[in-house]
Amino acid sequence: MSLQPVLIAGEWRAADASSSFQSHNPATREALPDEYPVSNWSDCEVALQAAAEAAAVMRVMPGERIAAFLEAFADGIEARQEALVEMAHAETALPKSPRLADGELPRTTGQLRQAAQAARDETWRMPIIDSATNIRSCFGAIGPVAVFGPNNFPFAFGSASGGDFAAAIAAGNPVIAKANSSHPGTTRIFAEAALEAAQATDMPAATVQLIYRTSHADGERLVADRRLGATGYTGSRSAGLKLKAAADAAGIPIYLELSSVNPVVVLPQAIEERGDDIVADFAGSCLMGTGQFCTNPGLVILVDNASTQGFIDGIAEKFSAAPVGTLLSAAVETSLQQNLQLLVDAGVQVVTGNTPGGGNGCSHGNTLLSIRGEQFLADPETMQTEAFGNASLVVVASGIEQVAEIIEQLEGNLTGCIYSHSEGADEADYDAIADRLRCKVGRLLNDKMPTGVAVTAAMNHGGPYPATGHPGFTAVGIPGAVTRFAQLHCYDNVRSARLPACLQDANPSGSLWRQVDGTWSQADVQ
Amino acid sequence: MSLQPVLIAGEWRAADASSSFQSHNPATREALPDEYPVSNWSDCEVALQAAAEAAAVMRVMPGERIAAFLEAFADGIEARQEALVEMAHAETALPKSPRLADGELPRTTGQLRQAAQAARDETWRMPIIDSATNIRSCFGAIGPVAVFGPNNFPFAFGSASGGDFAAAIAAGNPVIAKANSSHPGTTRIFAEAALEAAQATDMPAATVQLIYRTSHADGERLVADRRLGATGYTGSRSAGLKLKAAADAAGIPIYLELSSVNPVVVLPQAIEERGDDIVADFAGSCLMGTGQFCTNPGLVILVDNASTQGFIDGIAEKFSAAPVGTLLSAAVETSLQQNLQLLVDAGVQVVTGNTPGGGNGCSHGNTLLSIRGEQFLADPETMQTEAFGNASLVVVASGIEQVAEIIEQLEGNLTGCIYSHSEGADEADYDAIADRLRCKVGRLLNDKMPTGVAVTAAMNHGGPYPATGHPGFTAVGIPGAVTRFAQLHCYDNVRSARLPACLQDANPSGSLWRQVDGTWSQADVQ
Repeated sequence: MSLQPVLIAGEWRAADASSSFQSHNPATREALPDEYPVSNWSDCEVALQAAAEAAAVMRVMPGERIAAFLEAFADGIEARQEALVEMAHAETALPKSPRLADGELPRTTGQLRQAAQAARDETWRMPIIDSATNIRSCFGAIGPVAVFGPNNFPFAFGSASGGDFAAAIAAGNPVIAKANSSHPGTTRIFAEAALEAAQATDMPAATVQLIYRTSHADGERLVADRRLGATGYTGSRSAGLKLKAAADAAGIPIYLELSSVNPVVVLPQAIEERGDDIVADFAGSCLMGTGQFCTNPGLVILVDNASTQGFIDGIAEKFSAAPVGTLLSAAVETSLQQNLQLLVDAGVQVVTGNTPGGGNGCSHGNTLLSIRGEQFLADPETMQTEAFGNASLVVVASGIEQVAEIIEQLEGNLTGCIYSHSEGADEADYDAIADRLRCKVGRLLNDKMPTGVAVTAAMNHGGPYPATGHPGFTAVGIPGAVTRFAQLHCYDNVRSARLPACLQDANPSGSLWRQVDGTWSQADVQ
Repeated sequence: MSLQPVLIAGEWRAADASSSFQSHNPATREALPDEYPVSNWSDCEVALQAAAEAAAVMRVMPGERIAAFLEAFADGIEARQEALVEMAHAETALPKSPRLADGELPRTTGQLRQAAQAARDETWRMPIIDSATNIRSCFGAIGPVAVFGPNNFPFAFGSASGGDFAAAIAAGNPVIAKANSSHPGTTRIFAEAALEAAQATDMPAATVQLIYRTSHADGERLVADRRLGATGYTGSRSAGLKLKAAADAAGIPIYLELSSVNPVVVLPQAIEERGDDIVADFAGSCLMGTGQFCTNPGLVILVDNASTQGFIDGIAEKFSAAPVGTLLSAAVETSLQQNLQLLVDAGVQVVTGNTPGGGNGCSHGNTLLSIRGEQFLADPETMQTEAFGNASLVVVASGIEQVAEIIEQLEGNLTGCIYSHSEGADEADYDAIADRLRCKVGRLLNDKMPTGVAVTAAMNHGGPYPATGHPGFTAVGIPGAVTRFAQLHCYDNVRSARLPACLQDANPSGSLWRQVDGTWSQADVQ
């Protein structure tokens, strides 16, 4: 068995590695055959230098060329669809269909093509022109971007294929991908396709590089290196916060998606009106993908009244009846079990589940927990422990005032939902909590579960700390996702021919939206 | 002599103070009569609680009410113009005219009125509507903002009056102002006017609060408190980085403006064409306000040729002939002298100046230093030491290639300028360096000195670290300055009447620009 090579400076080359690892099939718990290197710092060093050289070329490259690369890459992914689905299924146990082949893969290529369109039409640059002072500004490339992808979306958030990758490239930055250790083989296939696309479209050698794993110390050194422009990270809070500390100390932007319990408040009149439908919605949302979504509804807040117990029983019934899915890895299984135990030790009751196994390989019974509002308020930090997987905690509050108190104690989350009466019979209750919840979440939903993140300009897949590192940015949706990986560039009295095309008097495409003297316009500057 | 009270929760009350300080007139080095408290944590604690309560009211307040407050405050400042100018002149020695009364004060009220307009018309919210999915997003208030103002703009960047203050309020956030210790009396007058305006416009009691000084530890605790939404800081790099570390560790956004030497490259053909004009421009820009501007040109990069020495001699002549101004404080004087000594110890040559005194009170001779390019490259970190004040360092490079190497070694700066031949005779030289400089600065200028920061939407008063904490934000210019103090708020399937006005189908003013289905529009959503 030989070590897989890393992709550095346009070549698959032997890693400078001191150890290695294998991925495992979570459905069988067996190691997969390939062996991947844990790189020493020298691999990072060479990759950083190559990335800096690529960045100097890419930052002044016409958007059309970036777009051509991203589109060729999307085509290359489709050409490798079968291999990608096979490998990702083996590494993650996510279903081939309906998930990998017909859900996540088209989402991934769709994101890449949206990013290509943004690169081509330069919408992400957000040009602003003040003609009276001849001061003009737009966003420009930030420099090489390190991407650390999560375990739960091997395609759509993959470090060499996903949303952060697409956004970083669209802004004219090379990417150093750090594979997620649970699916290195999947990431390798993406990197192969990316390299082929880069060569076919004459991009710099180091447009996309891949390192499988480093020591924690070298990861921290990487995100703090001054040759790096920024980092995108999606993963565990503990690992993310170490990277954040290192990057922050060096003044290098890092965008993190760390954790979220995604509170769902169901008001009593919604339960009375359509409780069964909401039970079905909730159970479907919570158990989909074995609960391993960033926006999985992990916390349900109810008001205690005559219909509450029936609602909880209804969920429990669905949870018991549903098949138990396979978790992404033994590490996810262990973490889920430990966090559920932590909650149980803190006094929450098990309504159903919390039994080991029950599915193929790595698995744990579909678990519903419950606790009373006053117990939640006695230890709100512990009660917000994220049990990533097919589990959720129901909090039964004594009244709407206590719901408001509970919301005040919430950490930042990606999403928050409120279900209320369809005709507004409980509008006063909604008003008592909506604004409080609003401040705690990136996306506020009505009458809808949070799983399902539409790729649209109006999306916010982000939220206040510790859901992410900054409440002003989204990881999904263009231009927001792209401008994370940009600097704000102002040009003061710069001669016309020296300006980037998007800031010259003539609208470069005739259709680019620019803010000219306070008005958004597609016209030339007069 | 009794301690001045602090402004907390709408009342001027005795501080919980363990010590006190006085400001000094830098022109006489004499202490001014008033004594100001160094607050203990309990003052911060009460202020934070009051700010959190004010934030809950302000974040859902119609923009019109915020605007009314800001405009009443601007009026109140004008009513106190004489007292403000007298006090600021006494505390900073900045000239009453042409500076405080007719430059900085109208700029300050102009900024407040621009912020009022932004609050009223809600342009800063940047609404995005996707009608197909009914997903809508806009920016919303972030929560209480702590503002630490600098010493060099007692009005326009003052913690209770300046750009960060105006931006934070415009986004619907209360402000906890931390006075700069060199002009507490000026800040007090602003806070008096702000309180009066808040009362007259029925704003929450804690809309504006004022604490004069705390221990460093309490400052760090303040910016890391979870009740705080964000911090704006302009000041010394050392103090700023301590606050940054504390805020970063808590995940609370902090926007910092830390330091900048603002490199100016003058290409040989520009000198040959119009060297005398550039000498005059440079000397005027560098000595204006005794060099105490954030965008003061502290580093000049020349190419060695026949005209170089004459150009340097020309600057030296202007520096020698110009009167020596008074520095803002004894601390600025000491820091300038220490940093100049550090540069001299590292081998730079004194062309002119670097003699103590020469002006009224705190002062130091107008100083021009020089060094050769290879010496700069041997120790680029030391050579970029910011000598804040009436001093600049000329680097004489061996050729344009060495200029490029020097630029590669630059830290992030607010601005960078290139002077070149007016007919483009040296375009190849420009091209060899412009993109490299572009990545290192927030604002790139042609043929123009960097002092003078127009308040316009296209301005970027920001730049890569360590000029600021993040390369994507500006401290001057709306909407950029305002959105720093905002969260991104997405609404998914939220019922129409529950949406903020700016996201409802009807355009609230008929003139608000919104991005609807990819098109910027002032129309209603169909």
